[in-house]
Amino acid sequence: MTGSERRHGGRPRSERADKAIIEATLDLLAEEPGVAGLSIEAVAARAGVGKTTIYRRWPSKDALILDALGAAKAPLPEPSGGSVREDLTGLARALTDERKRRYSRCFWNVVGGAEKHPELYARYRRDIIEPRREIVRRVLRRGVGTGELRADLDVEVAMSMLLGSLTSKRPEETFPEGHAEAVVDTLLRGIGTDAKRRGDGGSEPISAR
Amino acid sequence: MTGSERRHGGRPRSERADKAIIEATLDLLAEEPGVAGLSIEAVAARAGVGKTTIYRRWPSKDALILDALGAAKAPLPEPSGGSVREDLTGLARALTDERKRRYSRCFWNVVGGAEKHPELYARYRRDIIEPRREIVRRVLRRGVGTGELRADLDVEVAMSMLLGSLTSKRPEETFPEGHAEAVVDTLLRGIGTDAKRRGDGGSEPISAR
Repeated sequence: MTGSERRHGGRPRSERADKAIIEATLDLLAEEPGVAGLSIEAVAARAGVGKTTIYRRWPSKDALILDALGAAKAPLPEPSGGSVREDLTGLARALTDERKRRYSRCFWNVVGGAEKHPELYARYRRDIIEPRREIVRRVLRRGVGTGELRADLDVEVAMSMLLGSLTSKRPEETFPEGHAEAVVDTLLRGIGTDAKRRGDGGSEPISAR
Repeated sequence: MTGSERRHGGRPRSERADKAIIEATLDLLAEEPGVAGLSIEAVAARAGVGKTTIYRRWPSKDALILDALGAAKAPLPEPSGGSVREDLTGLARALTDERKRRYSRCFWNVVGGAEKHPELYARYRRDIIEPRREIVRRVLRRGVGTGELRADLDVEVAMSMLLGSLTSKRPEETFPEGHAEAVVDTLLRGIGTDAKRRGDGGSEPISAR
């Protein structure tokens, strides 16, 4: 949440209005036109509040959307600091579970509308996605430090494989039971054996390219 | 391509019209409203042909869109049958290069509109995406057969990691040079070492879960 843009009056009535506004925003954002179809007027009508009630709390449509997206994502679990396998599995499980949530389609629509709404998309990446990616990145870096992960690990490549495999499907497409654990296991131990075929480029480390 | 739905008259003038229609379809599909914003009327106007010219060749808007998407994707390279590493790298390179193509945004829009256009999306998956996934799947299965890949490999999990890491970014976001090679290398050898921390669940095969 971009907390500085949102002021709670502390009064229950105001909190109820906030909640109704956030929910109306997410409902509209989940519909097909996505960001393009969302207006302060439509949010006000759906939430049953006046437009000024919204403008009093959020300076712009983008600020409202970002707060709503922040409210729709549960925080990722805090890494335990035990094993890297354990921490990656916990994060991967949280990411697959998230897909079942009511508002997962909103995120898809914001990403889909990035070309027309680049500023919103950039703030979404910076304020909502990057802090979550950073949690995963830190676990990988810690693993390199402890020797659980390869010393020559390309952290961004590993991130793209882990997160890509967990987030590239559409929200209504489900993963089989145990997908998160299987992805982490496969990422840790790899799919190759030591057997090689003639014509294989061998397994020189990437850094040798 | 759903070839049976498209009939070439064999005359140059007809081929020019086909090409103009396909290009107009892709241009419209690349715009923000995506599938929802594309009509036969709009395609006809942009291509400079009459609506009947379109209907003579394509029985429906969906059939036209699917042909246009098929025309916009270059075929994946034929696996050489040498080493699995070599074949996976060739496929991964083709997939990352494809992102730079003019019409990569069309695919994003069809996937983004899947909820409102489920039948089109299902045909897109079946006719365009699945045959491409099957090429990758066969290389992985071959690797299990030759012993280059682990005998207990979960092919679908490996697919989700390989393809997720190559396709989950938005089309205008680029990968660093060498990304395809790095992903294949990381997938083959894994990121873990044999070192383990207390509390680690160990490396029992997934099938033991």
